Amino acid sequence: MSTAYSALADLLGPRFTQSQSDRDLHGRSEGHFPLMPPDAVVYPETTEEVASIVRICAEAGLPVIGWGTGTSLEGHSIAPRGGVTVDFTRMDKVLEVLPEDMVAVVQPGVTREALNTELRATGLFFPVDPGANASLGGMASTRASGTTAVRYGTMRGNVLGLEVVLADGRVIRTGTRAPKSSTGYDLTALFVGSEGTLGLITEVTLKLHGQPEAVSAAVCAFSDMEGAVGAVIATIQSGIPMARIEFVDAAAAAAFNAQAQAGWADAPHLMVEFHGSEAGVAEQAERFGEIARDFGAEDFRWASLAEDRNRLWAMRHNSYRAMLAAYPDTAPITTDICVPISRLAEAVEATAADIADSGIPGPIVGHVGDGNFHALLLPKAGDAVEWEKAQKLAARMAERALKLGGTVSGEHGIGLGKVKYMEAEHGHGWQVMAAVKAALDPENIMNPGKLLPGN
Amino acid sequence: MSTAYSALADLLGPRFTQSQSDRDLHGRSEGHFPLMPPDAVVYPETTEEVASIVRICAEAGLPVIGWGTGTSLEGHSIAPRGGVTVDFTRMDKVLEVLPEDMVAVVQPGVTREALNTELRATGLFFPVDPGANASLGGMASTRASGTTAVRYGTMRGNVLGLEVVLADGRVIRTGTRAPKSSTGYDLTALFVGSEGTLGLITEVTLKLHGQPEAVSAAVCAFSDMEGAVGAVIATIQSGIPMARIEFVDAAAAAAFNAQAQAGWADAPHLMVEFHGSEAGVAEQAERFGEIARDFGAEDFRWASLAEDRNRLWAMRHNSYRAMLAAYPDTAPITTDICVPISRLAEAVEATAADIADSGIPGPIVGHVGDGNFHALLLPKAGDAVEWEKAQKLAARMAERALKLGGTVSGEHGIGLGKVKYMEAEHGHGWQVMAAVKAALDPENIMNPGKLLPGN
Repeated sequence: MSTAYSALADLLGPRFTQSQSDRDLHGRSEGHFPLMPPDAVVYPETTEEVASIVRICAEAGLPVIGWGTGTSLEGHSIAPRGGVTVDFTRMDKVLEVLPEDMVAVVQPGVTREALNTELRATGLFFPVDPGANASLGGMASTRASGTTAVRYGTMRGNVLGLEVVLADGRVIRTGTRAPKSSTGYDLTALFVGSEGTLGLITEVTLKLHGQPEAVSAAVCAFSDMEGAVGAVIATIQSGIPMARIEFVDAAAAAAFNAQAQAGWADAPHLMVEFHGSEAGVAEQAERFGEIARDFGAEDFRWASLAEDRNRLWAMRHNSYRAMLAAYPDTAPITTDICVPISRLAEAVEATAADIADSGIPGPIVGHVGDGNFHALLLPKAGDAVEWEKAQKLAARMAERALKLGGTVSGEHGIGLGKVKYMEAEHGHGWQVMAAVKAALDPENIMNPGKLLPGN
Repeated sequence: MSTAYSALADLLGPRFTQSQSDRDLHGRSEGHFPLMPPDAVVYPETTEEVASIVRICAEAGLPVIGWGTGTSLEGHSIAPRGGVTVDFTRMDKVLEVLPEDMVAVVQPGVTREALNTELRATGLFFPVDPGANASLGGMASTRASGTTAVRYGTMRGNVLGLEVVLADGRVIRTGTRAPKSSTGYDLTALFVGSEGTLGLITEVTLKLHGQPEAVSAAVCAFSDMEGAVGAVIATIQSGIPMARIEFVDAAAAAAFNAQAQAGWADAPHLMVEFHGSEAGVAEQAERFGEIARDFGAEDFRWASLAEDRNRLWAMRHNSYRAMLAAYPDTAPITTDICVPISRLAEAVEATAADIADSGIPGPIVGHVGDGNFHALLLPKAGDAVEWEKAQKLAARMAERALKLGGTVSGEHGIGLGKVKYMEAEHGHGWQVMAAVKAALDPENIMNPGKLLPGN
């Protein structure tokens, strides 16, 4: 092992470190997991360096964990078995922008905001928006989505190709720059969402979209949750091409008020955005307004200026912190179920009732246009009884999602936190995943302990 | 082996056959391959029967080949090593339509036209349209696309989940009915496009789309190929949401005239379709018309009535037969390259010049909004010199596609015919595919000889 560390130090010089602070930094996550530091952290600058790092680790049998911005929520990037964390911060170049093909090629450490800043003058943008300013390599690895997936899809549909360093150090390219292909197994889709357990993504080819000519956003309040959720379902079923449609329950609205002086009623809200031509946006907004009013919406606030919209979405993106601030001294447990839109009302209402019964705070927000929502369960810090109760609430949410034809994770992924649900969701399917894992990483060095039971 | 056949006969009664006519029928394809019949054909009616069939074949080491409608073009469903062909004709039920979720669940033998007939009253439709009235199981297996992919995507984006019988007879379900999920490897995407080499698809959950309020189609002629292709590129880059945009060269137009009394000029044409609201369609059509006229389009013919549009697209769908009829006594070789839209003009023009130089007929049609086009190479039947020349033309097209950042197959797949290009397109990637294949089908009984070199 010390031979491996010497080899890494020789390869990378000061970009190899075993300092306690660096190890601790890469042992923490935004989730509720205890500190699990790696034994070393490396900062490669090229694909060749990543391949050499993986070869050195493979020889020594050391775990290899990828790190983007550390904003994932299920402990994807921490190191339960030690090993070497590969931090992609220094691989942060936009390699190519091809406006005619609406394609960008980026290194994995480029964040979505950095890419969109670089794209500003092209008339194009990259829409997938998980809230955090995550790295695009990390977003591909976790199959991220977020507020705009209802219109533009998730990382599944917006990654055209990848460069990947395999567990033995070989480098492959998946996909092409053509819009479609049918030449064999879809390796791009296999690696998107594989959470670093099959290889490390060293380059991402992304699909770009045209910046909409016009954008308009709005917030409206509802007297009850049923009204808000009913309006979402009716809106989606009406075919209005919503760019965003976000649900915020009364507790979350109160947290926004406290944190961002939102001045909202303490009531369920919908936050919506429309993209299109001037006329198209106006038509969409009018149709949405009619539906929402039918379900009791009031107190409409429109935001057409970019700065007003930015303030609005910043509030939504900061909701996790706002809710933590509203409930200090709690130990947060994130949840992330996703159900067919026809079962959304049932899923949200049963979840809210279950949370109310428990006496544990659990504000709910969600990308409800996709049937996806999050309750942030907030048991008191250090209270084992509440912690246990909250874990049971989360487990019941997962079971409910599966019973309704949905999934235990719409967008956060499996990481460490949801391995326990893999068999319930996939049946024998997880064994197929395990067979693929064993075929591509027989020594189990790529992000061990994550995604698969027994991994 | 005879034990296996007895077991299959016991299981299926008259739905097991070794008749010469049935074997020959399943040994033929629409491609240029010689007769390669299986040793037996079975007609299961349930997933359980399919699982039993696979278990029996696995025990005897017999090849298992899936069969939908036999309309694939690269010999996917013929039997180079004999074995048992599983014909899904009797698994042709639409199991569920969930209009609120815009989802349908079908058995693999349901054809796209049968599904759309069943959906007519729901206001929904399934858009993927490869021309042939293919089975949805076959379309999923080959990752099919066709004329509408430019707007609605390919099978990659329109399959939500699958039921699959694995090589050892286990049955798995992939995906859920929720619009998105991030729970582990994307097995749905792994099986879509796997051409029956990893398992047999026994159920498909499909994404449906709203029938457009208004539809309008048009054809226009160009004085030269450069104008037609230039108009396509400008149209796509302008962001007009084309539902279809098809290129037809002068030779193909002449074949349409001969076959369908199209009355077109013997000149390159574009065939287009617009979907949307009445106002939206009118606006799209006007914007397209301006662009096309800038590139020299003339002789616009509009088709707003459903029957006129149907006649138009029937002509496009029958183009393969029309071209064969126009060039009798030829041995057709289909091609299917796809390139980034910025390289489309270069790809089409170099291909056309190469074909003209060869003296071999090669009419070109294409789903050019995706950068995808087909030259149908037509060497004289029985002329070994012309056949060799045409094979070289096809190989140069494939090389050109790769050089331009594209793919050797946009939608037809690999089957038997394109195995030779897998290494050139995927580098080490095909070894990753081979490792996945070996993990899921270690005895190589699932459609052997297809998709992978050495398989």
